[in-house]
Amino acid sequence: MSPKITVELLRQLRQAMRNSKYLKEPIQAYIVPSGDAHQSEYIAPCDCRRAFISGFNGSAGTAIITEQHAAMWTDGRYFLQASQQMDNNWTLMKMGLKETPSQEDWLISVLPENSRVGVDPWIIAADQWKNMSRALASAGHALVAVEDNLIDAVWEDRPPRPSTPLIALGLKYTGLTWQDKVTTVRAKMAERKISWFIVTALDEIAWLFNLRGSDIEYNPVFFAYAIVGLNTIRLFVDQKRLAEPAIREHLQLDALGRPELSVQAAPYELVHTELQAICAGLGPKEKVWICDKASCALTETIPKVHRTPIPYTPLCLAKAVKNATEIEGMRMAHIKDAVALCELFAWLETEIPKGTVTEISAADKAEEFRSQQKDFVGLSFPTISSVGPNAAIIHYRPLPETNRTLSLNEIYLIDSGAQYMDGTTDVTRTMHFGTPTDYEKECYTYVLKGQIAVCASVFPNGTKGHLLDSFARAALWEAGLDYLHGTGHGVGCFLNVHEGPCGISYKTFADEPLEAGMIVSDEPGYYEDGSFGIRLENLVLVVPAKPKYNYRNRGSLTFETITLVPIQTKMINTEMLTQKERDWLNEYHRQCREITGAELQRQGRKAALDWLVRETQSI
Amino acid sequence: MSPKITVELLRQLRQAMRNSKYLKEPIQAYIVPSGDAHQSEYIAPCDCRRAFISGFNGSAGTAIITEQHAAMWTDGRYFLQASQQMDNNWTLMKMGLKETPSQEDWLISVLPENSRVGVDPWIIAADQWKNMSRALASAGHALVAVEDNLIDAVWEDRPPRPSTPLIALGLKYTGLTWQDKVTTVRAKMAERKISWFIVTALDEIAWLFNLRGSDIEYNPVFFAYAIVGLNTIRLFVDQKRLAEPAIREHLQLDALGRPELSVQAAPYELVHTELQAICAGLGPKEKVWICDKASCALTETIPKVHRTPIPYTPLCLAKAVKNATEIEGMRMAHIKDAVALCELFAWLETEIPKGTVTEISAADKAEEFRSQQKDFVGLSFPTISSVGPNAAIIHYRPLPETNRTLSLNEIYLIDSGAQYMDGTTDVTRTMHFGTPTDYEKECYTYVLKGQIAVCASVFPNGTKGHLLDSFARAALWEAGLDYLHGTGHGVGCFLNVHEGPCGISYKTFADEPLEAGMIVSDEPGYYEDGSFGIRLENLVLVVPAKPKYNYRNRGSLTFETITLVPIQTKMINTEMLTQKERDWLNEYHRQCREITGAELQRQGRKAALDWLVRETQSI
Repeated sequence: MSPKITVELLRQLRQAMRNSKYLKEPIQAYIVPSGDAHQSEYIAPCDCRRAFISGFNGSAGTAIITEQHAAMWTDGRYFLQASQQMDNNWTLMKMGLKETPSQEDWLISVLPENSRVGVDPWIIAADQWKNMSRALASAGHALVAVEDNLIDAVWEDRPPRPSTPLIALGLKYTGLTWQDKVTTVRAKMAERKISWFIVTALDEIAWLFNLRGSDIEYNPVFFAYAIVGLNTIRLFVDQKRLAEPAIREHLQLDALGRPELSVQAAPYELVHTELQAICAGLGPKEKVWICDKASCALTETIPKVHRTPIPYTPLCLAKAVKNATEIEGMRMAHIKDAVALCELFAWLETEIPKGTVTEISAADKAEEFRSQQKDFVGLSFPTISSVGPNAAIIHYRPLPETNRTLSLNEIYLIDSGAQYMDGTTDVTRTMHFGTPTDYEKECYTYVLKGQIAVCASVFPNGTKGHLLDSFARAALWEAGLDYLHGTGHGVGCFLNVHEGPCGISYKTFADEPLEAGMIVSDEPGYYEDGSFGIRLENLVLVVPAKPKYNYRNRGSLTFETITLVPIQTKMINTEMLTQKERDWLNEYHRQCREITGAELQRQGRKAALDWLVRETQSI
Repeated sequence: MSPKITVELLRQLRQAMRNSKYLKEPIQAYIVPSGDAHQSEYIAPCDCRRAFISGFNGSAGTAIITEQHAAMWTDGRYFLQASQQMDNNWTLMKMGLKETPSQEDWLISVLPENSRVGVDPWIIAADQWKNMSRALASAGHALVAVEDNLIDAVWEDRPPRPSTPLIALGLKYTGLTWQDKVTTVRAKMAERKISWFIVTALDEIAWLFNLRGSDIEYNPVFFAYAIVGLNTIRLFVDQKRLAEPAIREHLQLDALGRPELSVQAAPYELVHTELQAICAGLGPKEKVWICDKASCALTETIPKVHRTPIPYTPLCLAKAVKNATEIEGMRMAHIKDAVALCELFAWLETEIPKGTVTEISAADKAEEFRSQQKDFVGLSFPTISSVGPNAAIIHYRPLPETNRTLSLNEIYLIDSGAQYMDGTTDVTRTMHFGTPTDYEKECYTYVLKGQIAVCASVFPNGTKGHLLDSFARAALWEAGLDYLHGTGHGVGCFLNVHEGPCGISYKTFADEPLEAGMIVSDEPGYYEDGSFGIRLENLVLVVPAKPKYNYRNRGSLTFETITLVPIQTKMINTEMLTQKERDWLNEYHRQCREITGAELQRQGRKAALDWLVRETQSI
């Protein structure tokens, strides 16, 4: 990995920072956040501005360029990568270390008096703007919105914003028409006396309209904004995408009779002007919903008296609770996904001894098997296919220069998933194709105990996921071990593999309570730097539980596992399991054999079926 | 319980709200918070202003009086009590119910335009002031500080502020001189470049100076403020209390040589003036620490550029981590306390069949036995002595009109504790003196399983207590049961029975990590309205654990139980216990027999010793 040479780029950027074409007055610093105008976790190439200016292309990082300095803040996952990808014009700011200054403190320490710090208000979130602005103001500086993005100004061959074809999903996949969804949202708006709701998150827009695109890799979304009023509904999207008659019909673009349930389409870029016009016409008591993580630019367009920022929009909450059709789709997707993985593992068992399988070729093979399944669309995230020490790197992605060969001597961890028209999958299995050591088995068994503890737990209605996180760790903690990531995240249905507002993590307190119909991952792990990594991940559906009693009629919940891929018993020290854990595992494997087995049979995949039957024997 | 007649009082208060003697301009509403100027949980009679004006004397509530209305906000624990104690001039605002408006919303709905809402800035916390002030401003009203308390103005026979004799604690009890403590605090101040630290919490002041008082019932504290500078230390307290030569010597009041380690004393009332003078002399970059829960008045005295509000002061943190002497004292206090409780339970066993023991007489007997122990000072909180349905009321306190007789047919719950010179105790036991039902035993066993799960848990250094809360509930949850309170709180050493900054509760996220030396309670429960209540409470000391491995050299912690009172085995369904739980209980009872037994023997308390030996048989 050689660093990107940025001398000339930085010179041009600094020139732009003084150029009256973009700015009335020069700025002394320019902030380049990661991310796009929609709070997306994964971003399109045209939005990779921080990577373009610095060379560092990890998923998290903020660059700040002053007249003299260029500095990059990123976290521990990326210290090595950032230092390798950036040239010596850049200073790496290691977040999480005591001696590392915050962006605000650093700016205050290097800026001349009364400086102006610029940022693109479309890619900084409203709350981040507020904090940064306050801190700078307290030291006599000003944070200013630079409407023309200065990276774009110096980025000659910047790719265009993607505008991929849209797919309209029928009731068979969605369970609800978009009109039904709009009606439900409007009822929530009326209940809270809200006149308008500005939708900025791409997965919320895709879910609301029952549309999918492929603008962002792994995420079946498309660039758009939506504004839901009590009687109108507007979609801001590249107009070319609406030429298809099927899409026009789906959105009722040309409907005359029911204006409140036919979409008014407008170009993507016009959202700002349109929102201004709407706000200009608001009555004194009218209120507008916008997510508090939306861009500063759009948020500030709504006058403060009308603005009602919310941490989670009603769409985020509605989308998280899957309806019966979505649940059925997610189940189907997981059966197909299990078929592909059984094929993969059976194949690996045969091929590994030949010494020809690498992390990359195994990942490719997994994708190949998945692509043979019905309604396969693509992967849901880059496959983590990792052997031995590479598996200890939690966010590892195999590259030609790190690619290891699978062998009978090292643990293999594969964390992968796919998008199918009917659902999204995300599964991790850790396997040994030779003979694991007692220590590896011991660690694996702690992880398994944690996974079972979470998915077998029963808890009252209203419980937030973070209250279950410690169940996943208790067995590891007792042995003095732990893992430094959360235990679970929400998963979309043929949508983003990570979604809010629920999850299972010690890190958050602001999650929404778990509800029947939500789907989250259950994925404890254990990682030993330079040696091996273990993670077991199933997706689990929140379902009502029927315990013996029902305190205060609150009702109880538990989980049903929808991932149906065997858990390698060879890696388990069965003596460490309680009878309850043993029963759980045997019952799980019985389901894998019954459900995944039937599908393997149907698809005539004999070798994989044999593998499945052998791997699901009772212990 | 008959309500307090408040017609005349409210008339006088409303007159005061318009009286130019107290106010330049009239106010249209007056807020009466609970609490004193020191964020105290328990308050002195002179500070019970909300109870005086309304009649409602529960521990939590806020009164707001306008020209037309008088309203009281309180939570579910007190709905019944408040409605019984207040006359029909008052409207009860039931917090936690959806239809109940917030104080701000209610004020905005009832106030005429441009109203002025008054509050005593000494008894409203800075952050509460800020929120209320913003909400009122957004609706065109103003929150104004009324320096003269208007309740005091109409309270004719208001008791004087207590000024009880001070006790100086020697090294034998404290382990550290106050000079050592001041030196440590100053090192922390220097590290963070802090020039002054304003101490407002009474228990922090008592702990810092190794002094105790009895100004507030159950809490061995005294009314004071302290200001710690890098070279000076000031104590604001009623000067009469410093007449004793022993106290003068202890505080080095008359020392000439080392001004930085001799206390400068000033009257309690002068803290404001003195803080103003200090702030007037601050250099431009000098900073002042004050707790963010301190009074608005004192907080606002510090100009914003100098003010550094902190959620937990270094004294709060230092006090929470007990030193070796304090730990030894807490252990001793718990042995003495266990002796008293063994006496009580042995006595109850004999007396209950006679039908003469009531909740109140049992509580009195417990106090009598405790008072026979060395260095007994008083109770640490009002004893919860409750039979049958009364035990389902979590914050029950027996009153003549609710007093039930103990019998062989109902469960008895006693939650009690004492202040000894060497430590503070807090213990709950739930007993049946006849034959419990299978259902009662089942519930009791779930609670016990939860208690054991917490205190036997092993967790990494840096873990916050709230991450352990679910361990206490897992067994109950599995049966569809739960309890609606936190699992544990910090406990002071011959100080407040509730102290921060650590605890074990699902309700908080802002607690500080558990550290070796901290002492918290472990008290799950189960309550069935109208029927019975179960709670088991031990105090546990955080100690280093030595598990098999040591991930990333973080080290591990666990708990050691310091309460040594038997857990009634008659109430346990032993079949529901795992072998590990059984072993834990047998080992615990072995310790009770060994340690408490030895002390009972030494004190010649034969009947109680026999009871202890019988109650601690292995199961």
